[in-house]
Order: sequence, then structure tokens, then C-alpha cells
Amino acid sequence: MSPHAPPDPDFAARVRDSFGRQGLMATLGASLSRVEPGLVAIVLPFRPELTQQHGLFHAGATSAIADSAGGYAGFTLFPADSSVLTAEFKINLLAPARGERLVAVGEVVRSGRTLTICDLKVYAEAGGARTLCATGLQTLVCLRDRPDTQTR
Amino acid sequence: MSPHAPPDPDFAARVRDSFGRQGLMATLGASLSRVEPGLVAIVLPFRPELTQQHGLFHAGATSAIADSAGGYAGFTLFPADSSVLTAEFKINLLAPARGERLVAVGEVVRSGRTLTICDLKVYAEAGGARTLCATGLQTLVCLRDRPDTQTR
Amino acid sequence: MSPHAPPDPDFAARVRDSFGRQGLMATLGASLSRVEPGLVAIVLPFRPELTQQHGLFHAGATSAIADSAGGYAGFTLFPADSSVLTAEFKINLLAPARGERLVAVGEVVRSGRTLTICDLKVYAEAGGARTLCATGLQTLVCLRDRPDTQTR
Amino acid sequence: MSPHAPPDPDFAARVRDSFGRQGLMATLGASLSRVEPGLVAIVLPFRPELTQQHGLFHAGATSAIADSAGGYAGFTLFPADSSVLTAEFKINLLAPARGERLVAVGEVVRSGRTLTICDLKVYAEAGGARTLCATGLQTLVCLRDRPDTQTR
Repeated sequence: MSPHAPPDPDFAARVRDSFGRQGLMATLGASLSRVEPGLVAIVLPFRPELTQQHGLFHAGATSAIADSAGGYAGFTLFPADSSVLTAEFKINLLAPARGERLVAVGEVVRSGRTLTICDLKVYAEAGGARTLCATGLQTLVCLRDRPDTQTR
Repeated sequence: MSPHAPPDPDFAARVRDSFGRQGLMATLGASLSRVEPGLVAIVLPFRPELTQQHGLFHAGATSAIADSAGGYAGFTLFPADSSVLTAEFKINLLAPARGERLVAVGEVVRSGRTLTICDLKVYAEAGGARTLCATGLQTLVCLRDRPDTQTR
Repeated sequence: MSPHAPPDPDFAARVRDSFGRQGLMATLGASLSRVEPGLVAIVLPFRPELTQQHGLFHAGATSAIADSAGGYAGFTLFPADSSVLTAEFKINLLAPARGERLVAVGEVVRSGRTLTICDLKVYAEAGGARTLCATGLQTLVCLRDRPDTQTR
Repeated sequence: MSPHAPPDPDFAARVRDSFGRQGLMATLGASLSRVEPGLVAIVLPFRPELTQQHGLFHAGATSAIADSAGGYAGFTLFPADSSVLTAEFKINLLAPARGERLVAVGEVVRSGRTLTICDLKVYAEAGGARTLCATGLQTLVCLRDRPDTQTR
């Protein structure tokens, strides 16, 4: 049982639809692996196209999936006709992002009327082992009466 | 005249070589536009492959070029046989990242023996106008006696 | 000439009155030194009561005046019947906070309807010299129709 | 059983001695409540001398005890002849800091040779109930061969 009760029962479809419209996630090769009330996970398989200068995942790739995971974790708890914006985030890179894939987990810490705060974690999976390689905090804004599918 | 005196006269070649090995920057379509002592700028032209759900630049793309710009700004002031790691960064998204291109500028605020702090700014250029769309702070680690070209 | 036009002509009196009600600022011995549209500076003279374990200013003292400087910088641009809350801030401690006094300067980077972003700088003044000892970023919330003097 | 093994068996005495030399903690009225390998908690009873303009705990007081709790959490895992410095921290204020006392908990997420990353949480206790009022992340530097008691 989740501590978070999403006001929109179709939250998962809404998240998946919105994620599908993020050109960057497709470019990176990222996909949604969990969509739950207040929690979203995104998986990113390794490719040389995602690296920094030493062949590890670039911090920008790590941050991009962390930002989307947190943004959509918040979005699961938003009303149906709203949009989500990232106001800011901070991320600490704890260990080399090395492995077959990264898994970013965004989790809502506090969901308010306007601001939602998420915890961000990114794990590197290599040979069956999982290492926490980044941890972050994110502040989201809920834009009410601005459906996510509306053209900007 | 710069307040920063790079210990390695070949700093620009070292930065350009390292940037060329970042798979992610090529995937995004980013390129270096300025490499100066303590300052690096990166340009990212708009493509639908870089968007979030509303067709604007994804915060992950904004962050990725900001992180690289800051990292290489610090790297211009590092010794020849060192590497650079991002320890952490924080970024505030100030305005919609809309336009023909983004320009990320990383600038060294303080360069110490181990830690270097950079200021990050990202501008959106649209129809000749330039808007500050993100501002951030970044902490870098200088790894001495670990040449950037060494295999990890 | 300021780029910021405060909607409330009495912004300075409103800031000074509110600052006077902050018990912590009196406890620390801090005072307002500048109150301008979008910019507030706070001075904190050195006392052993403000130190960390090595006799320098404690990062908590540095942060406290930086937070108040930024909060009131934002507040100068808010409507008369509003309140200000800090949603979050991040601060990098760049150099030892050593000297006769600290001066914190908060400056508005972007003032929006709900969120305001401020740049934070703290300088240590010692023997006539001024050193930048901390730099930060802060996100403020404007609570409309909630006068600052209202009891909570 | 703790996942962290402190290299100095006298870590708790070292932390308590150092905390006792922090003038600011005495000024605020803060005291240590837990000193464990990789975890330190600090309690701060409410006083009007610690408030912001609405009579709640000032974010500066919340941040000051969070910074000390994290700093000393890291310090528990440092060698005997080292010192600790805060490089940076970020804190989100989640809920009004209202109550009889605040409890800040700093916990080590990753302890490296040079950098240590801590998770920061601050709880407000009111009438027997405990509310998470702030969450943060902190980067510490371990200065080796620089005993904490050495004059600077």
C-alpha cells in the first residue's frame, strides 16, 4: 500500500504517454521500468553514444534519466489536466557510472499543491551487482489547468 | 587578460581532444564554441531528438552541456597529466529552453588543488534574442597523475 | 538604474520591518546594509559565538545570512500583501570564512509569479581585503494574499 | 551492525570534543544526541532567538544544525589526525519548522579518501509528532594530517 494516493486513476497511462513524447529519452535509448504512485524508474542500457571521455556513462546521461524519473514520479500524483516542470535539481556523482545499464529511481518526498520534492537515485548495474552511483534532490512545479498534451 | 593562468600551455588542445572522445556530446550534436583559460562554451542546435514532452529542449540536454562546459572550464586550468571528474552540480531551470540553439557557458569561480568550483549558465537563442534559461553551480575534482587519455 | 521595478514602493520599509522580527538575525548580530530593488546585503561582525571548531565563522552562520539576504532580495520585488518562503538553497563554501566580518549579498536572477531565483554571495572582510568565501543559489516562493505580518 | 567501520576507535570522543568547540552550536543551544559510525544527530530546542519573521525556526538555524550533523557524521569515519570541511550543501525546506525542537540527522552515503557525501534530514517535533521539515545533501572534504584541534 502506497502512502501516496494519486488523484488521477489513469496516472500510469498519462506518464507513459508523456514519456513517449520525450525525444531525448528515445535518443538516449531509455525506457520506463516502473510507474507507481510517487515512484518512477527508468532504465538506460550502455552504448558508446552515451559516454564521457573515459568510456563511462556521461554525467549528463545519468542526470537526464534522473531528472525524467523524478519529474514523472511527481507527475503520477498530479491531477489529470496538469503539467510538470523541473524548477531545479542537484545531483552528487558518487561512483563511476560503469556497467551494462543505469537505473534511475525518482521518488516523491513531499507533494504539495504547487511544489513537489523528489529524491533521485541512480544505480549502475554490472555483472549482476548494483552500485549507487548518483543521488540527488529535485524540485518540481505543478502547472494546473495546463494539460500535458497541450501544444506550447 | 585572464585572471587564470593555465599551468599547461596546451590546455585548449587537451580540452578539444577530450571533448572529441565524449560520445554523448556527438550524440546530442553539441560542439565547443569557446575554450579559454577558466571558461568553456558549448553550443547545442535544436533537434526534435533533444526534446521533453512539449517539444522544448529537455532539462537533461540543458544539464548535459552545462556539465561538460563546466568540467572543461575547470580542466583548462589543470596540469597536463590530470583528469577531471564532476563531484556534483545543481541547476535551476529559469525559463523554457526554446529556440534554435542553446549555449552553455562554464566559468571557474575558484580553482583549488583538489576542488574546483564553476558557475554554469545556459542561454536559449531564438530569432536573434538570447534568454538565460538555466543557472547552476558545479564542484569538480582534479585527479593528478591520471592523464585524461589513460584507459580506465 | 535597476532592471527590477518593485510593485510596492514601500518595499524597503517592509523588508526592514520583517528583518527586525527575525529573532535569529539579532541572536547572530547581523544587520541589513543594503536594501535595493532585487538586492539585499547583510553584515555579520565576527564573534567567538559564531564559530566552528577552528575559530572561523561556522558555515551555518554563513548560510543563515546568505539565506536571509536572498529571501529579502526576492521580497523587495513581491507585492505588499505577500510573504516569502525559502523552498531550497545550495551553497558552496569556497574559502575559509575568516575576518572581521562577513557580508552576504542576495540578488534576484529571475522573479516569477510563484518562484523567484536568487544568486547568493558571501564575502569575508579582513584587514581591508575582501574574499569571496561562499556562492549559492536559492529558490523562493511568493505567497500571495498572505501579509508578512500575519500571525501563523 | 553498522556498514561503516571507523578507523579511529575514539571517534565519538573526537566528535564530542570538536562539537564542544563550535561557538555557534552553543549560541543556538544545540546539543549532540547521537554519535554513531557514519551517523550524528543534533537536537535544537525552540527559542524565540532562533526564529524567522513568523516565529518559526529560521531556515538558517535548520541549515546550521543540518550542516554540523552531516559534518560530524563524516568525521566519525575519518582518521584520528584529520579535519573535516564542508565543501557544499543543498537543502530543501519541505514544511514549516514549527515545534518544541528540531532534530537534524546527518548520515554518510559514501565515504571516500578525499570526499564524503552525506544525507541530511531535519525533523520538527511538536506535541509528540515528528514531521520531516528539511532534506539535504552535503559534500565534505577530509583534510589528512591536519588534526582537528590544531590552531588555524
